[in-house]
Amino acid sequence: MQLPYFVLQKTTPYGRLGTLVTAHGNISTPCFFFCATKATIKGIDAQAMETLRTPVLLANTYHLMLHPGPNVIAQAGGLGAFMGWRGPTYTDSGGYQIFSLGYGCVSQEIKGSPRSERYLRISEKGAEFFSYRDGTKWCLTPELSIHVQQALGADCIFTLDECTPYHISYDQTRVAMERSHRWAQRSLSEFLREDAPYKKSYQGLYGISQGGIYPQLRRTSVEFLNATDFFGHGIGGSLGTTSKEMGEVLDMALEGLCLNRPIHLLGIGKIEDIFDGVMKGIDTFDCVIPTRLGRHGGALIMPHYWKSAQESYHARTSINLLKSCFRNDHRPIDESCLCPTCQRYTRAYLHHLMKSKEITGGACLTLHNVFFMNTMMAAIREGIAADSVAQVRTHWLGR
Amino acid sequence: MQLPYFVLQKTTPYGRLGTLVTAHGNISTPCFFFCATKATIKGIDAQAMETLRTPVLLANTYHLMLHPGPNVIAQAGGLGAFMGWRGPTYTDSGGYQIFSLGYGCVSQEIKGSPRSERYLRISEKGAEFFSYRDGTKWCLTPELSIHVQQALGADCIFTLDECTPYHISYDQTRVAMERSHRWAQRSLSEFLREDAPYKKSYQGLYGISQGGIYPQLRRTSVEFLNATDFFGHGIGGSLGTTSKEMGEVLDMALEGLCLNRPIHLLGIGKIEDIFDGVMKGIDTFDCVIPTRLGRHGGALIMPHYWKSAQESYHARTSINLLKSCFRNDHRPIDESCLCPTCQRYTRAYLHHLMKSKEITGGACLTLHNVFFMNTMMAAIREGIAADSVAQVRTHWLGR
Repeated sequence: MQLPYFVLQKTTPYGRLGTLVTAHGNISTPCFFFCATKATIKGIDAQAMETLRTPVLLANTYHLMLHPGPNVIAQAGGLGAFMGWRGPTYTDSGGYQIFSLGYGCVSQEIKGSPRSERYLRISEKGAEFFSYRDGTKWCLTPELSIHVQQALGADCIFTLDECTPYHISYDQTRVAMERSHRWAQRSLSEFLREDAPYKKSYQGLYGISQGGIYPQLRRTSVEFLNATDFFGHGIGGSLGTTSKEMGEVLDMALEGLCLNRPIHLLGIGKIEDIFDGVMKGIDTFDCVIPTRLGRHGGALIMPHYWKSAQESYHARTSINLLKSCFRNDHRPIDESCLCPTCQRYTRAYLHHLMKSKEITGGACLTLHNVFFMNTMMAAIREGIAADSVAQVRTHWLGR
Repeated sequence: MQLPYFVLQKTTPYGRLGTLVTAHGNISTPCFFFCATKATIKGIDAQAMETLRTPVLLANTYHLMLHPGPNVIAQAGGLGAFMGWRGPTYTDSGGYQIFSLGYGCVSQEIKGSPRSERYLRISEKGAEFFSYRDGTKWCLTPELSIHVQQALGADCIFTLDECTPYHISYDQTRVAMERSHRWAQRSLSEFLREDAPYKKSYQGLYGISQGGIYPQLRRTSVEFLNATDFFGHGIGGSLGTTSKEMGEVLDMALEGLCLNRPIHLLGIGKIEDIFDGVMKGIDTFDCVIPTRLGRHGGALIMPHYWKSAQESYHARTSINLLKSCFRNDHRPIDESCLCPTCQRYTRAYLHHLMKSKEITGGACLTLHNVFFMNTMMAAIREGIAADSVAQVRTHWLGR
């Protein structure tokens, strides 16, 4: 059978169970993908990620294109071999990084700052930008993104799309969406070319749904994806600014989508949003949140933490080890957690490491968060199998 | 038997074999101690250090006194329990950090810059300094250093000494040495006090030899150490600026020293200097070099590396993975190395991580260097046992 392929084991009104079969191993879904942006989880090596039973890593085409370059990774035998990772890999198209550079950061986005022409020019051909490393000028076209992703050789790859921010108008979103659809079509044509130098027989290509927060545009995007022969659906573009709004946009983006393909929700990683996504039928997620949170002192926590801390019901899903209340607290982050960090280190020690800017602290917290996410996703899969997702949600989220 | 104790198994003209028996495990000597300065090896957690068969960790009293403070560590059950490390620990007195702050950095020392009165005032009582963390004023006395080290609870601890730099005169060195001897005597008295709040029955106290590069002063210091009831000898103060000079100063510092105590050489960690030290009878060493080198892209290398690289004889003991020659080099650092890094990652990948400022790169190189040092020290011990240290030296150093 042609790799990769997707097998749906069970579909329920509160989520579905599946298996993504790739050349580098199987991925049980629903699954959360950690971002090995520059071909590493920051501070955690591939061996440790394996020990934590991580199913898959997602790397970033934009960063790896600039360094070390696709040829180096191709000569290493592909992304997995290059980074010493033996499981499946995904790469995103590089679009998100380029456009977030061009549109500016989230706070600029919220303020509605205009796109910076200095860093980014978008045309029908592709996205022209300047390397943050050495100032050299690049033009990332849909075809180039496919070439680079073929050289990187991940199991699944994405089409180049224009990631539009929240605060742009219906018309701007429509223009960008229609261009993204044309880019997606060009990506697929390039992907199917038999004579591409780094053509891989085992790769799957995801198309990406656009349309921002506008129901009519989301509907158009669903029709486009259904009509185009992608391996998987990605749900991209703006999902609004709140969890509630995300739920509404997800409903639009999923309505009418043909359901025999795997569905990936791009850039979503908050615990509550993952449960919401799973229960709407999302198969896979990726986000930097769990690893970035760890590096900055945050540990993911289950609701029983707040109960044992004798605090009244607390809606937060993490604690910040930098807080001085942990200075003399000689318990593990979570006494019931089986992760390597909770098995060996205390809140006081992690607090000390974070306050002393010792990178071991961020690494230990990242390990905890990776274990937390992998364990939670396994519980979610068991919940769907046992028709008890709502109970799993209450157990992990408290609501 | 009173812990710790030192058993000499074999004494030869080219080094000696021994065992340091501590409450937290045995240390086979000659041994190299890694510096877990702020209670961690930067980027490497205690579990990984155990996996690499690291015998002992040395932490820093000065840094831990400022954060998290001795009380926090005492309440954790001592340094080892605090940092999740199950083996033996040492702490230095904190003197080195204070005086290097006061005397300035190495380049200032070489230029002979005067001591900065802003940061450091030395009196008979102790060393007054200002915290680099919050500007608070401290006075580290010999007694306070012992109190803090008793609270930290390492297996072996050091007396507070004034670490004089290379470029000070005979008279200045003599004044500092005599004061250090008085401080050492006060340290011992304090250490022996039965009613100290954090008194530990299992701790051993090292006195430290001073006298810089002056034979007569080194002789005086030897007499002082022999006459004072320390558990071990530390060799401190300036050892000159070259390996040759270090050899000469070591000869002075060892001549006449009573040999039934363990002898620790402070702050020495270059491969050639370790072999020179071992062959003169040094039992233990500590230095930041192997771990700092790794963080900055350096991997320790055996002579066969240079042969396989078809370079003419190369006296260097490390390579710098930041160099562009490694960009497309898909071999491990050393094909014969059994460390976790060489088992999984290539020079090209490590080069990419270092160039991309990914902390995983420094962590992987640190792991390699720790494994290298531990393996080399084991080979040295086997060499002494088999009367073949010279061959071991040639194998590891190429000369």
